[in-house]
Amino acid sequence: MPQKVRIALDAMGGDVGASVVIPGAAISLSRHPDSEYLLFGNQAQIEPELAKHPALKAVSKVIHTDVAVGNDDKPSQALRRTRRASSMWLAIDAVKHGEADVAVSAGNTGALMAMGRLNLRTLPGIDRPALAAVWPTLRGDSVVLDLGATIGGDAHHLVALAVMGSAMASVLFNIERPTVGLLNIGEEEIKGHEEIREAAEMLRALPDINYIGFVEGDGIGKGRADVIVSEGFSGNIALKTAEGTARQMFELLREAIGSSWISRIGYLLARGAFRKLRDKLDPNKSNGGLLLGLKGVVVKSHGGVNMEGFAYAVDVGYEMAHYDLLTKINQMLNRDGGALKSAQTAQEAVS
Amino acid sequence: MPQKVRIALDAMGGDVGASVVIPGAAISLSRHPDSEYLLFGNQAQIEPELAKHPALKAVSKVIHTDVAVGNDDKPSQALRRTRRASSMWLAIDAVKHGEADVAVSAGNTGALMAMGRLNLRTLPGIDRPALAAVWPTLRGDSVVLDLGATIGGDAHHLVALAVMGSAMASVLFNIERPTVGLLNIGEEEIKGHEEIREAAEMLRALPDINYIGFVEGDGIGKGRADVIVSEGFSGNIALKTAEGTARQMFELLREAIGSSWISRIGYLLARGAFRKLRDKLDPNKSNGGLLLGLKGVVVKSHGGVNMEGFAYAVDVGYEMAHYDLLTKINQMLNRDGGALKSAQTAQEAVS
Repeated sequence: MPQKVRIALDAMGGDVGASVVIPGAAISLSRHPDSEYLLFGNQAQIEPELAKHPALKAVSKVIHTDVAVGNDDKPSQALRRTRRASSMWLAIDAVKHGEADVAVSAGNTGALMAMGRLNLRTLPGIDRPALAAVWPTLRGDSVVLDLGATIGGDAHHLVALAVMGSAMASVLFNIERPTVGLLNIGEEEIKGHEEIREAAEMLRALPDINYIGFVEGDGIGKGRADVIVSEGFSGNIALKTAEGTARQMFELLREAIGSSWISRIGYLLARGAFRKLRDKLDPNKSNGGLLLGLKGVVVKSHGGVNMEGFAYAVDVGYEMAHYDLLTKINQMLNRDGGALKSAQTAQEAVS
Repeated sequence: MPQKVRIALDAMGGDVGASVVIPGAAISLSRHPDSEYLLFGNQAQIEPELAKHPALKAVSKVIHTDVAVGNDDKPSQALRRTRRASSMWLAIDAVKHGEADVAVSAGNTGALMAMGRLNLRTLPGIDRPALAAVWPTLRGDSVVLDLGATIGGDAHHLVALAVMGSAMASVLFNIERPTVGLLNIGEEEIKGHEEIREAAEMLRALPDINYIGFVEGDGIGKGRADVIVSEGFSGNIALKTAEGTARQMFELLREAIGSSWISRIGYLLARGAFRKLRDKLDPNKSNGGLLLGLKGVVVKSHGGVNMEGFAYAVDVGYEMAHYDLLTKINQMLNRDGGALKSAQTAQEAVS
């Protein structure tokens, strides 16, 4: 790739806006010197931050807007109020018009999805976008999707998720044929909703997909597959429950350690180990959800991350653009398009 | 309650059978001297274990059968092969015929549910049974259901789960009006499946239910409500994902600690704290899932527990029988029966 990777940033998104987005971008730039930036947002907030990072300033262009999507705006409100004007919309718009290769925002997920869908449209063969993220496991990282972009869905939808997740894992982890599992409540073939069993049949028939079977909730953390596929409701429940459990364990550990002097001394000695654990499970380190299924790459950062965390989201965007995720997804969709289309027809025929 | 609590035990269930079930019962008996036991299973395996526990032997009656449900039997197989003969069936049958107040088995969940449903039948107003368990949270314990007994379900089903879970929490935690939340992918009223929103409306109208709103996956571990209600698919995904995350964290902690001598010394000093944490999250300590919705109380113990773990499952059975869970559920179903019945009719009318 001779050209630079052009990254559009929503500088107003997230809990703190430019004061995290700009230094985060500077960190990512130091890791990927072949990138350049379009920064959308309030110039008065962006410029002072940018002044602290001359290397970033040298490869950035600021596009001023004082309209921002609120963290609590409903998607419909955000669209009505800030369409064609907000930093979030403009960043996505830059991708649409080929001025950027990827957009990154730490803003409100619902608004980002609604704007992405409306402005970029979905890929041929894809009805509804999905939210995918990297999940740290005992065996390395896995891609898990859909984390809540759309609720429910038929077998065709699950197969489309598998194809897109597989392309993402292949680009991100640099594996030829990542393993793919369907999230289910048992590993036996008889278990689960009808559409999951049907999707399993279809996936087994797709040459591009390395389908390994059903995976239960505890199989995600075990790293049973490189890609875990679920409709968005259960995927979101799994993600949030895992986050809650991890937080709960840190809390209990802190409590247990604080309960005696001797444990506190032990903790001081072992604190390097604790830091390692915390780092491994730090949401900042696996930050960067991907909106999949759109005619453009959009990365969703957590709203509450620090600059290191935002830098990881920018890294994810860089990787996806640099290794051309979209072309990869399109190729797979085209190759496997027959299966997807026939499934869709079959679904429509019975509904 | 002047009478003793009569507990029917499937002595052949679980990974190890009588060698865990009998000592487990002995431990529970020491905590609840007003209980007596019917022990179903192979006499040749039960008697030697029983000989080691004279106090238990004194209040137990052994009923011999050499038929046992296999751990990997499918429910249909188990029914066909061992109905009316297996230790599991006979323990449930004792409840049906009023010879025992509760049955406890560490055997195969699917078979236990199928036998429970076929032999005990469901309560009036309940279509399908549910599996409920105690979930350790940062705020104490919560009841979570359904953990996978039935997949999907309409608003009426969710309301029935809320009523039964509420009765269970009230008996188990000794609270008058336990708080009840519906598991969902957002806390706002607009989120989630249609049936969850409809269930929320219905629950708000029920005087017996202390409904507090939607709870996200991470709200379970935070202890956001005393009772968390979900249909069985998402409930099972949440449970297994939490178990997987906890195991993953222990694994990573062990790894991190083993990585340097100084951390190992620190660990030795802080090991009391670690033990406390492990105890708090030990599945043996929150063992005892309840099959709810049947005309009788059936407790499902994990198959892989030790004797302490099985004792906890027997404790749960004792509590449920002693405080008469079934009457409590029936009272609530009767009081709230109007709402349940009208919802059911509405559902049938449109389907």
